[in-house]
Amino acid sequence: MKGKTMKIAQRIARLGTETAFAVSAEAAAFAAEGRKVYPFHLGDMNLRTPANVMEAAIKAMHDGKTGYCPNAGIPQLRETLAADVSASHGIPYTMENVAIQPGGKPTISKFFLTLMNPGDEVLYPNPGYPIYESQIEFHGGKARPYSYIEGERNFEIDLDMLARQITPRTRLLVLNDLQNPTGAECRAAELEKLAELVRAHDLYVLCDEAYFDIRYEGRSTSFAALPGMAERCVILYTFSKKFAMTGWRLGAAIGPREIIDIIIKLNVNDESCSNHFVQYAALEGLTGDQRATGQILKTLRERRDAAVDRLNSIEGVRCFRPNATFYLYPNVTGAMQKKGLTDYDAFRRALLHETGVSVCTRLHFGRPLAGEKNFYIRLAYAGIDTPEIEAGLDKFKAFIES
Amino acid sequence: MKGKTMKIAQRIARLGTETAFAVSAEAAAFAAEGRKVYPFHLGDMNLRTPANVMEAAIKAMHDGKTGYCPNAGIPQLRETLAADVSASHGIPYTMENVAIQPGGKPTISKFFLTLMNPGDEVLYPNPGYPIYESQIEFHGGKARPYSYIEGERNFEIDLDMLARQITPRTRLLVLNDLQNPTGAECRAAELEKLAELVRAHDLYVLCDEAYFDIRYEGRSTSFAALPGMAERCVILYTFSKKFAMTGWRLGAAIGPREIIDIIIKLNVNDESCSNHFVQYAALEGLTGDQRATGQILKTLRERRDAAVDRLNSIEGVRCFRPNATFYLYPNVTGAMQKKGLTDYDAFRRALLHETGVSVCTRLHFGRPLAGEKNFYIRLAYAGIDTPEIEAGLDKFKAFIES
Repeated sequence: MKGKTMKIAQRIARLGTETAFAVSAEAAAFAAEGRKVYPFHLGDMNLRTPANVMEAAIKAMHDGKTGYCPNAGIPQLRETLAADVSASHGIPYTMENVAIQPGGKPTISKFFLTLMNPGDEVLYPNPGYPIYESQIEFHGGKARPYSYIEGERNFEIDLDMLARQITPRTRLLVLNDLQNPTGAECRAAELEKLAELVRAHDLYVLCDEAYFDIRYEGRSTSFAALPGMAERCVILYTFSKKFAMTGWRLGAAIGPREIIDIIIKLNVNDESCSNHFVQYAALEGLTGDQRATGQILKTLRERRDAAVDRLNSIEGVRCFRPNATFYLYPNVTGAMQKKGLTDYDAFRRALLHETGVSVCTRLHFGRPLAGEKNFYIRLAYAGIDTPEIEAGLDKFKAFIES
Repeated sequence: MKGKTMKIAQRIARLGTETAFAVSAEAAAFAAEGRKVYPFHLGDMNLRTPANVMEAAIKAMHDGKTGYCPNAGIPQLRETLAADVSASHGIPYTMENVAIQPGGKPTISKFFLTLMNPGDEVLYPNPGYPIYESQIEFHGGKARPYSYIEGERNFEIDLDMLARQITPRTRLLVLNDLQNPTGAECRAAELEKLAELVRAHDLYVLCDEAYFDIRYEGRSTSFAALPGMAERCVILYTFSKKFAMTGWRLGAAIGPREIIDIIIKLNVNDESCSNHFVQYAALEGLTGDQRATGQILKTLRERRDAAVDRLNSIEGVRCFRPNATFYLYPNVTGAMQKKGLTDYDAFRRALLHETGVSVCTRLHFGRPLAGEKNFYIRLAYAGIDTPEIEAGLDKFKAFIES
C-alpha cells in the first residue's frame, strides 16, 4: 500500500528522532554478516526483571486486572509512589501529585503540551537526550541548548552558557540529573545556581530523573527538593531502569497538582490509561523484596569499573568514573587524532568494522554546537556483560594503539 | 504540593475530555451509599481475557521479552496483523503499513498530528466518541460535526448535513464505523457516497474501526476497502474488544506507508514502544485458538437481545437492534415527556437515583447541535451480565410507567 502524494502537516518537518536507532541497525547488519558485535550503543538492559515483580504481574492478570483502570493510574500505585518519592526527595507529595504514564518518555511531551506556548524558549541539555530538542520544536517552542564542561571529577553544566541563553522569552528548563550521556550528576553548587536562575526568571522545570536510583554510592539529590522548586518542577519518573522493566513501559509524571490534573486530562485524550496489571508489578517493585534491585546495581557497578579501567588504559582516551547512570562519555579526541580521523561517523564506523565495538557519538545527543573542540563517544554498559566489555575494549585499545 | 499561580499553555483551554468519567464517579458515589447500581454507562468489559492469550504473555515475560522492542512493534505482530487485516478488509497491507500502539486511542492524536494543520477543518461524528472533537481542537483544527438520522433499521449518517459542512478548508474526515454510540454500521450506499465526497474534496480519513470485529451476523465492510480509499485512510485497530483486552493497552495504526512512517517517528518521540510481552499475547490472540472469541460474541449477543427486548417494552422508549458493537442508543423522548423531564442530566440522575440504572446520554458524545428534537441515552452491555440487564431494565420500565 503506497500513499498518493501526501499533504503532510507542517509540524512534521520539525519532528526529530533518536538517531541512535540507525546505529542499532548498522550493528545488526554487521552482526548479520557473521561478525561479532559488542553492543555499547544500546540504552537497554540485558538484566532480568526481578522474579517477584513478574509474579505480581501474573497474579494481577489472573485476578482479572485486565480491564481499564483510572486514567491517572491505580490509586494504590499513585499513593505508594508518592510516599516513596516523598521519602527519597524530601518533598511532601501525595497521590494527587502523581499521574502514571506508559513509560518515562510520555512525560516529556505532556510537560511541553501543558506549559509551552509556540514561540516560548526552552533551555535544554546538549549533549542530551535528543527527544527534548525534538519535542520542543515539534510543539512550536524554540530550543536553546546549554552544554557541559569537563570538571575535575566529572562533567559540570556550563552555567555561564546557560545564563547567557536566557532571554525574556525563556519559560522552561529541562534538567536531566542524573545525566545521560555524561553519567554525571549536578553538584550542590550547580543545583543552587540553577535554582537562583529559575527563581529570577520565573521558569518551570522538567526534571528528567530517569536515572535517579541508578547510583553506586551516596544518595541522589533532586533539584525539585531545593527551596521553592517543587512548585515549579515536574519530575519524570520511570520504573524502567531500577527494576529492569524497560520493555514494560511504565513511569509517572510527578509535580504540582494543577499541572498533574492537566497531564491526567492528556492521559484521557492520548491513551486512556496505562496497562492495568503492569501497575501491580510496579507496586511490588516498590514495596516487595529489594534484593534483586541491589543485585542489578552490583552488576552495573562491576561493569562500570571494567569499562572505565580499560578505557583509561587506551592512548588518547580520557574517561571519568561516574557514580551514576549506566553511561560513559569518554573524551576520544586524542584517539581520533592518532587514527587521523576528524569525523564522528567515520570514527564510529571504523571502530565497528575493525573491532565490533558499537557505540554512539556526540552526534546522537543533539545538534552539535558551534566551537566544540573535543570529541566524545557514549558507551552504555547496561546491555553487555563484563567479559564482553573487557574483550570489546581490549580490541578498541589494540585498534587505537596499532 | 500545591502549585503557584500557573502559566498554563493556551492550547490547554481547547482540551476536552470524556465526560462519561463523571457518570462513573456519580455511580460509584451512589453505590458507596449501599445502593444497587446497574452499570450501563461503562464502555469496559466484564469478560475475561482468553486463557491462551494470558498464557502467551506470561511465556513471553519468562522468555525475557521485557526489554525495549522496535518502535513500530515486533515484526511478527506487524506481519500477522497486516495479513489478518488484509484478509478481513480485502486490502493488500504488509508490515510496513502497521505501527503498533499502546491502545487504540493513540492513533487518534497521531493521525491529527500527522495530517492536520492549524485552521484545517475536520468532519467528525456527533454524537460520537468525544475525543475526536477534543483532539481536533487541541491541535488547532476546526471541528465540523455531522450527525445521524433514524433510518428504517438503524441510524444512518446524515449525508446531506455532512456534505453541507464541507468547505474549501475541509481536509479530514473521521469515520467511526461500526459506530459508537449508535451501534449502527454504514450501509453500502452510505460508504459509496462518502467515498465520492472524499475523492471530490481530496480528504484523508481516520477510520476508527475499534468495533470492526464486534458483530453478530455477516461481515464488516471497511470504508478503506472502497476503490481508491486505502491510500487515503488510516485505520484505528485495537485488540481491546475482540480479545477482552481493554486494560492491556494494545492497538495499531494501519495505513499508507508514508503516513505510518511518520506515526512510527511519533512513537519514537512519545512512548518509545508498546509493552513488549503484551505483543506476544496479541499474536496468540490473532493466531491461536479462537473459541474464546466466539464465546465473547455469543455472550454479548445474548445481552443485546435481553436489553433490546426490555427497552422496547417500555412506554416512550424506541430502540434499534444493532448487529454490531456493544452499545444501544434508544430514543427516550417519549419516556422523558412522560416523566415531565426536558433536561438530560435531570433524567439521567432521576433514573440512577430511582432505579440504580446508570447510563450515559447524548451529552457525553459531543456538544449538542442546534435543532436536536429527540432525546437519546446510551447503554453499554459489555460490562453487565444478562440477569442484571433484565433486573435493571425492569426497574427502568417500572419507573417510567409508574
